[in-house]
Amino acid sequence: MPGAGVAAPTAGRPSSGAARQSSLREHNLAVISQAIFASPEPVSRAQLAAQTGMTRSTVSRLTEELIAARIVAEHHPTGGRPGRPAVPLTPARGSFAGLGLQVNVDYMAGRVMDLTGAILAEEYVEGDFESSDAAAVLARAADLARRLLERAGATGARVAQACLGLPGLVDAASGRLLLAPNLGWHEVRPAELMGADALPAGTALVVDNDANLAAYGLANTAPGRSAPSSTFIYVGGDIGVGAAIVAEGTVVLGKHGWAGEIGHMAIEPAGPQCHCGARGCLERYAGKHAVLEAAGLPLETSTAALAEAAASGYGAARAAVERAAWALGIALAGVVNLVDVDEVVLGAGYIPLVDLLRPGIEEQLRVRTLASPWMRVLLRGAPADPAPAATGGAMRALRTVIQQPAAWTGTFA
Amino acid sequence: MPGAGVAAPTAGRPSSGAARQSSLREHNLAVISQAIFASPEPVSRAQLAAQTGMTRSTVSRLTEELIAARIVAEHHPTGGRPGRPAVPLTPARGSFAGLGLQVNVDYMAGRVMDLTGAILAEEYVEGDFESSDAAAVLARAADLARRLLERAGATGARVAQACLGLPGLVDAASGRLLLAPNLGWHEVRPAELMGADALPAGTALVVDNDANLAAYGLANTAPGRSAPSSTFIYVGGDIGVGAAIVAEGTVVLGKHGWAGEIGHMAIEPAGPQCHCGARGCLERYAGKHAVLEAAGLPLETSTAALAEAAASGYGAARAAVERAAWALGIALAGVVNLVDVDEVVLGAGYIPLVDLLRPGIEEQLRVRTLASPWMRVLLRGAPADPAPAATGGAMRALRTVIQQPAAWTGTFA
Repeated sequence: MPGAGVAAPTAGRPSSGAARQSSLREHNLAVISQAIFASPEPVSRAQLAAQTGMTRSTVSRLTEELIAARIVAEHHPTGGRPGRPAVPLTPARGSFAGLGLQVNVDYMAGRVMDLTGAILAEEYVEGDFESSDAAAVLARAADLARRLLERAGATGARVAQACLGLPGLVDAASGRLLLAPNLGWHEVRPAELMGADALPAGTALVVDNDANLAAYGLANTAPGRSAPSSTFIYVGGDIGVGAAIVAEGTVVLGKHGWAGEIGHMAIEPAGPQCHCGARGCLERYAGKHAVLEAAGLPLETSTAALAEAAASGYGAARAAVERAAWALGIALAGVVNLVDVDEVVLGAGYIPLVDLLRPGIEEQLRVRTLASPWMRVLLRGAPADPAPAATGGAMRALRTVIQQPAAWTGTFA
Repeated sequence: MPGAGVAAPTAGRPSSGAARQSSLREHNLAVISQAIFASPEPVSRAQLAAQTGMTRSTVSRLTEELIAARIVAEHHPTGGRPGRPAVPLTPARGSFAGLGLQVNVDYMAGRVMDLTGAILAEEYVEGDFESSDAAAVLARAADLARRLLERAGATGARVAQACLGLPGLVDAASGRLLLAPNLGWHEVRPAELMGADALPAGTALVVDNDANLAAYGLANTAPGRSAPSSTFIYVGGDIGVGAAIVAEGTVVLGKHGWAGEIGHMAIEPAGPQCHCGARGCLERYAGKHAVLEAAGLPLETSTAALAEAAASGYGAARAAVERAAWALGIALAGVVNLVDVDEVVLGAGYIPLVDLLRPGIEEQLRVRTLASPWMRVLLRGAPADPAPAATGGAMRALRTVIQQPAAWTGTFA
């Protein structure tokens, strides 16, 4: 955050000198913390001083606080000699952790990650949660959370926050799930249904759309560190099709947190009937069940097996995947025309299908994107991850520690 | 801008004390200028001090500079007694001006506006610029600019910048028009074709998409002053259909400045052939020519006459408008699903048609927006304006004076 260093706390409101002092310390602690986490390499106190414009002694005092809080660690590259000259600073290992949880139509999963991005515990459970009972499924998710917290706790880590990703509309302000069409859930309060004892006292549960969390994970290479390419559209293909727009590392939420609902963009207004009540939605062409139905394959078929069938020349599978690509291309051309982003990341169930989907998507992008002669849209697959929203959720859960370190300095006291 | 008051200049880079001092002055001058322009009421020096956290004497010194530069004026509400107590400050009248220009398929127009929003000169010229010669049309636009500048100059005003709105893709960085399908223009440099003498030396020409400029105008009630409702999607219906997404007062540009190309979103992938090469684009259902063709009316028919025909029960006109509403509703549902904005402003040729378009658009929004049970999308018409991009362009052209006043303090010296 160059230039963000010594800014004064919010001016203009009357406040006592002491309050201002404390707010300035909190602000500067956050600046130093974020600078250390953002750096791809260990960073020295001198570099932090140069980068933030703070004095060496201020930087030293703040880093001591972060080290004592076990948010930051000193890195001893050669043998660990505790000498003064340029001891680099890195994220601390094994202290704070984030818990990411994900419930999807055919699985639930959880992942606990520490501040270095190391995975302390994870679990993936297959299931069938289509048109399921929210209370029963979320009680199982609470059990999953408890198992993961126990395993993470055994390593000495402390989970600062949990983030739950769900395939539907989540009201960002209240954490209430409004609608998850494929789960069949309607107006559900996950924090209540998981129970007050699912998480330790003081550990907040944040609920978000699963594509938003998956995209957050892809926009960062480690907790607090932006990926180099961080403006893109993420499209995850599961039973439903979810998406998120990421602009300069930030997931675009929209007014209520509902942005990115690509799955219900109209492909053919008179097309097949969708769960949501409308006709011809993208999900009915490019959702997993729609593709498998069109291919004449059982709904339990994995996308890897579908990809193999299509690639090996099974005509109906190939045609179904081509139809999905055509529909995805139409929807994505609309997105590119509308928000002018030139990178598309295909994730979740689309990953094994990227090469098969590419020609059809690129054809529609070429024909239907007005700017296509001047803009090549880069289409790539996300790294394989069985539960990308759990990964992104774990990273998002750590944001509170990295961005508001002053609130966490007493945790390991 | 509460809290933005006394922030130090960008820290971290070595610079002389003098340079820092000058940059701090420029920054603070901009803060005071923007605060005066943002206020819907005249504002006193004491209010500015409270709002920005600067001292009364700093505020007084800075406002004197802005008054001397004729960017700001003292407002004497009761008889003009030049007393000390609370003389309110307002934007200056008749000093700096912005020139907005717009070339569309069937007209060109220009408007010169001063810092108070008063119109100093304007002109609207009908024409037929479909598949036209860019050099010839832009030479006429240069003549229009000269006439307007002469008239504005006669009032004593000085045009600080000009903004030209065109119905197509504009490369924001270079000001080059890449493509305006309905004008038939391709890779055009308007500044060159208008000629070096179209604008006085030192007056820059900014080129932008016309919907972006129209939306900018709607997002502000006066130069430098945001409208209360400033998150919306603007859709302007001319021969083409242009749009812009405005988020908290800022027009979303996207990576290259091409965001908002709603006119080429696919409504029916196998639908009618579009100018752009694709099939079934929104423009082929909801563009002015497409609607008039479907209504069996001459292409010269005004949208007001079309609205009258449809309202008075001429079946073909009514059906054509209903088809446009259906297509607009499908496209807008896609936009709402994707970016989660709950206000749509219909402008340009749609203004006389708003009441006729409303039921069809609202029906599609209801059926196709996943969040529709929890979100009512407000649909309204823009205020009537024959050349909304010229209006928005004039306001945008004044931004440089309001946001960087230090660069303009010597103009009237």
